[in-house]
Amino acid sequence: MATKKPFVHKSPVRFTHTDPAGYVFFPRFFEMFQAAVEDWFNEGLEVDYAGMVNNLGLGLPTAKTECTFMRPCKLGEMLELSVILEKIGTSSISLRFDGHVNGELRLQAKSVLVVISLETGKAEPISDDLRTRLSWFSPA
Amino acid sequence: MATKKPFVHKSPVRFTHTDPAGYVFFPRFFEMFQAAVEDWFNEGLEVDYAGMVNNLGLGLPTAKTECTFMRPCKLGEMLELSVILEKIGTSSISLRFDGHVNGELRLQAKSVLVVISLETGKAEPISDDLRTRLSWFSPA
Amino acid sequence: MATKKPFVHKSPVRFTHTDPAGYVFFPRFFEMFQAAVEDWFNEGLEVDYAGMVNNLGLGLPTAKTECTFMRPCKLGEMLELSVILEKIGTSSISLRFDGHVNGELRLQAKSVLVVISLETGKAEPISDDLRTRLSWFSPA
Amino acid sequence: MATKKPFVHKSPVRFTHTDPAGYVFFPRFFEMFQAAVEDWFNEGLEVDYAGMVNNLGLGLPTAKTECTFMRPCKLGEMLELSVILEKIGTSSISLRFDGHVNGELRLQAKSVLVVISLETGKAEPISDDLRTRLSWFSPA
Repeated sequence: MATKKPFVHKSPVRFTHTDPAGYVFFPRFFEMFQAAVEDWFNEGLEVDYAGMVNNLGLGLPTAKTECTFMRPCKLGEMLELSVILEKIGTSSISLRFDGHVNGELRLQAKSVLVVISLETGKAEPISDDLRTRLSWFSPA
Repeated sequence: MATKKPFVHKSPVRFTHTDPAGYVFFPRFFEMFQAAVEDWFNEGLEVDYAGMVNNLGLGLPTAKTECTFMRPCKLGEMLELSVILEKIGTSSISLRFDGHVNGELRLQAKSVLVVISLETGKAEPISDDLRTRLSWFSPA
Repeated sequence: MATKKPFVHKSPVRFTHTDPAGYVFFPRFFEMFQAAVEDWFNEGLEVDYAGMVNNLGLGLPTAKTECTFMRPCKLGEMLELSVILEKIGTSSISLRFDGHVNGELRLQAKSVLVVISLETGKAEPISDDLRTRLSWFSPA
Repeated sequence: MATKKPFVHKSPVRFTHTDPAGYVFFPRFFEMFQAAVEDWFNEGLEVDYAGMVNNLGLGLPTAKTECTFMRPCKLGEMLELSVILEKIGTSSISLRFDGHVNGELRLQAKSVLVVISLETGKAEPISDDLRTRLSWFSPA
């Protein structure tokens, strides 16, 4: 049973993100999801994301992702991305991202991330320690 | 009935695309899909994509997308993205992208693009001219 | 005479920024400079950057930039970018960016930004209001 | 004495590159310079850039760069980047990039690239083989 609330990553919509229509160019949202995961690891799971990559040699690539863009996001808006843990597999973590601006749902995404060894490129079982931390956000 | 074969966009995997694991960072693939669509418009549909945006004031945002990454792509590889037209709606175009390297399927994506007016941000019906051109790649 | 200290923009080095060597890929630093300018406007000059673009129709493109990268920045480091106002022209603002990690200078950049009308693309004189605000950070 | 003409890298201006003003967002140009260097290695110097990184463990980071943006580049334009070799040092290569659209100079950049070992992060002397190839484009 979850003991922590879904992590919320705040991402200001910047010039860098926007296209000639003045809206966020959709590939930029996937960069924001990545940033949300990093901050969720650092602040939510209290796992040093960079240390995991640099020292433990583990990666967390996205194996599958989907996103529906309900309404566009504009320069200057503050996008709040909730990171919702939906499922924990042997090596995989299924996440949902709800993106709100001022309480309005702008986009919703689902991603499956896989723990891999950066050396072999193969999936690695999620460690007991990480599994315990994930349970803080567990769906049931 | 399609009179043209699926358009293939070639994208060399560059330093710009790759992450600390030496593989393409997944949001970059969505930039490549966008490039594939632009080239498909210019070369496949023989519609000037930039002119459509700059002069006709039409946009073609991605309303929904999903992608499965079967195997990673490495610096120096040549990714061949096939653009496959799956469905034509009133205002929407459903595409599939098959990404191969040396004949091996590395990723597969589906996107729904919507024709909008850049001025109003609202969906616009696909013009007869564009519909005729799309039929060159029509699924049935 | 400056009444405010140089604005410092903190940018965590993320997976998004890094290359196969594990270091920030240099074009990403220029995106960080842009973010630093946006936050400096919003928080330092107390000018709504997005409103300036969206409502006033003013842009602030970079006309000239240079950067020396003394030492690389790694995933997980916190880059602190100081925004130092060096000169105010008729339409231009000359900035220096000093990038430190844990007090060590990693990079130093200089940029000239120009206020333009987004409609005409021409330079616009800096308004009295903006000039007053800039004086808070004025070099002398 | 140069036996080859300056290498020209063609970069179509894409949606990916452009900002709310409809122009290329300046950090994107630095990504284009990187792409130009990669293609210059592969096609001009006839050195496999990816192999150099992946197999020889050598990197070619940019140690210093500067760019003046004379006129903006718009969606749909074809930017031609000339790669001009200005100087060869012990470990460094000084390049100039002239960016033209339809013969008009839009931007000019200078970069110093350094050959490093990816393992140690230290500068490596340019090999005799690479030095010979560079001489094909040598300034004098």
